[in-house]
Amino acid sequence: MKIELENVKPMDIERRSFEIITEELKDRRFPKEQELIVKRCIHTSADFDYADNLCFSEGAVEKAIAAIKRGASIVTDTQMAKAGINKKVLSRYGGEVLCFMSDEDVAEDARRQGRTRAAVSVDKAAALGKELIFVAGNAPTALVRLYEHITEGDFYPALVVGVPVGFVNVVQSKELIMETDVPYIVARGRKGGSNIAACICNALLYMMDSDRGY
Amino acid sequence: MKIELENVKPMDIERRSFEIITEELKDRRFPKEQELIVKRCIHTSADFDYADNLCFSEGAVEKAIAAIKRGASIVTDTQMAKAGINKKVLSRYGGEVLCFMSDEDVAEDARRQGRTRAAVSVDKAAALGKELIFVAGNAPTALVRLYEHITEGDFYPALVVGVPVGFVNVVQSKELIMETDVPYIVARGRKGGSNIAACICNALLYMMDSDRGY
Repeated sequence: MKIELENVKPMDIERRSFEIITEELKDRRFPKEQELIVKRCIHTSADFDYADNLCFSEGAVEKAIAAIKRGASIVTDTQMAKAGINKKVLSRYGGEVLCFMSDEDVAEDARRQGRTRAAVSVDKAAALGKELIFVAGNAPTALVRLYEHITEGDFYPALVVGVPVGFVNVVQSKELIMETDVPYIVARGRKGGSNIAACICNALLYMMDSDRGY
Repeated sequence: MKIELENVKPMDIERRSFEIITEELKDRRFPKEQELIVKRCIHTSADFDYADNLCFSEGAVEKAIAAIKRGASIVTDTQMAKAGINKKVLSRYGGEVLCFMSDEDVAEDARRQGRTRAAVSVDKAAALGKELIFVAGNAPTALVRLYEHITEGDFYPALVVGVPVGFVNVVQSKELIMETDVPYIVARGRKGGSNIAACICNALLYMMDSDRGY
């Protein structure tokens, strides 16, 4: 078989990818502020399920962008998502990306209490007393703990990105978040992951970054 | 709607997840040494396409494990994959995880030469003159450059994990690698990503880690 490479310059690869995604989405239309997020999730996964499974609470994107502009930080439950989020754009507004999953005190509390490190991480985030975006790319237990905090009224993130992936309580944990009045972006169902978590954050940040010209 | 959470202890979540994956794969059978890799990719993505798209060259898993035991390092084209790979198990055998994508010399060469940083990173890996596993979770251009090195005979990785994701030259770059005689694990088609890249490395490392009891 003759394998033919498409001749695309490095700087044009992303643009060409988005053209292909747009072509294959055919006549699917998305609200303007959601479109880039949906397409970027497809771009990062090559999985068109994200055209159907992403759910946005009303005004979620605007609220998230406003929070970032006020200097909100991002807390995530995976080191991979932390590695993937664009710190440069976020830091322009004063925010940083935090992940407590490898912290010794979190591991210790989790062991002692028989809870997941992700659930303990949510408590640690809540205790910061700061405006935060919480990004769950791995652990449904993070979303369940967030649900408890939100319904008890003692921690209310500016946005919950709820995209854990998997088979145990993942579907349910996302539905719980969508029952609250917290601003959310959720990938309904089993799919998600640290790549999708980082991607959604970056889509928000790139929308705020006129250098990128979206 | 009443949302019911499954009562699974933190330490049992992964095992329960693998049970569900095994159930849903029904009568699908995989060669013993590939099974854990396939299931772990499904676990990390909730995407059963990986039951069909993962391709292994003959003896790839055994060759990779032998290389890690000899102290081979892992070079990857994404910081996210680097963040996700289990450094603890790898370091027991003397290997480390490297990613050159943010290196200033790589960025500079890429700019000057009109190439991608991923392609330049492959050259930097080749110049190390060490036994390496090359893991492409992002850039098809890394695989194309590896193909050139392999066919020219000046760099021959112990294993190529070829799982870039996307729409431009991704499919072709994987087919190129599968035309060589290099040991490979490739996710045929458009899918892959840094999560899958890290996951395949971790599956190999966990097979070598009797503590995990697989």
